[in-house]
Amino acid sequence: MKNKKMMIGRYSFDEFIDAAKSFHGYPAPGIIVGGIMVDLAIENMPEGVLYNALCETASCLPDAIQLLTPCTIGNGWLSILNLGLFALSLYDKHEGKGVRVFLDPVKMEYYPEIKNWLFKLKLKTEQDKDLLLEQIEEAGRNICGIQTISIDNKYLGKNSKGAISVCAKCGEAYPQRDGAVCLSCQGKSWYISSENMQE
Amino acid sequence: MKNKKMMIGRYSFDEFIDAAKSFHGYPAPGIIVGGIMVDLAIENMPEGVLYNALCETASCLPDAIQLLTPCTIGNGWLSILNLGLFALSLYDKHEGKGVRVFLDPVKMEYYPEIKNWLFKLKLKTEQDKDLLLEQIEEAGRNICGIQTISIDNKYLGKNSKGAISVCAKCGEAYPQRDGAVCLSCQGKSWYISSENMQE
Repeated sequence: MKNKKMMIGRYSFDEFIDAAKSFHGYPAPGIIVGGIMVDLAIENMPEGVLYNALCETASCLPDAIQLLTPCTIGNGWLSILNLGLFALSLYDKHEGKGVRVFLDPVKMEYYPEIKNWLFKLKLKTEQDKDLLLEQIEEAGRNICGIQTISIDNKYLGKNSKGAISVCAKCGEAYPQRDGAVCLSCQGKSWYISSENMQE
Repeated sequence: MKNKKMMIGRYSFDEFIDAAKSFHGYPAPGIIVGGIMVDLAIENMPEGVLYNALCETASCLPDAIQLLTPCTIGNGWLSILNLGLFALSLYDKHEGKGVRVFLDPVKMEYYPEIKNWLFKLKLKTEQDKDLLLEQIEEAGRNICGIQTISIDNKYLGKNSKGAISVCAKCGEAYPQRDGAVCLSCQGKSWYISSENMQE
């Protein structure tokens, strides 16, 4: 039976599809399922707690977190630890206590198109996208598991970059602790050639 | 002299400050400078090219990219390679050719508050935030450098996770190539304890 009243954060299901299109470029199943998971996690955090987010996959789910929580990759409140798991945690940024929401394959018996998606049992071109979104809306939180977690202290708090110097090679500002020249000049960058366009 | 007509993408300077507040939580100097840099990079990409973004810092700049381009961390079009440099590249996602925009310390002579910020010469509590934003608006692109780059072929294209299995320990879906159990069950997660809240 369709869950017509489902909300994802402040969005209706259809509004969230539009928000996903606008931010993520297209309403990928992962961001829609992700929205439902994030919403469940938020509801299980105590009111008023300042939380960070930890996302265990780099695909889709981080964007659901960025749409629905104050945590973004650029403000540092969202971390991605790519364990290849479609799961996220929200946790008190000082104490580390929080909740983890994951997808439970056992609960997917009645939602075969979701199982096909999660386990990549069909090629993307073979997916029935409308049916998949329908099953996601129908399933809602029924396919999720939730657990309390406690983040290891060593991952709490901010990492300072330390003192900043001018790189002797490229002339850009870089963290002095990285060595005599910046990591890019040490060959760690992805680009193989470059040419200045203006001075 | 104040650059009153400066636009950052489709935003006026003040509108972009509001967009930064809304997405990033607060108008951090890094996201505002970052917006100016992203805008410059976009203008230097050929019209109609589908591009990816590479960000060389995890701080602030990724959010400027997510606000102003179609590239997000969750759709995979934005990659963060944390080299500790305040720089970004946009590049043709198939060919790898593109532009890199960086901050040029040599050009900061007339904008001391920007230099103080970039080189962390003042504590955050000592920063004159209004003056800093004023100087950022005044400086605009004057503090940026731009170069053409070519991304190494090995970083182009999508990485497939390969086949997905059920982890024999936790029961979640995980990339089979990671081993007999998922990376989390191999001890790679950040949480030290967990307890299921519902089955």
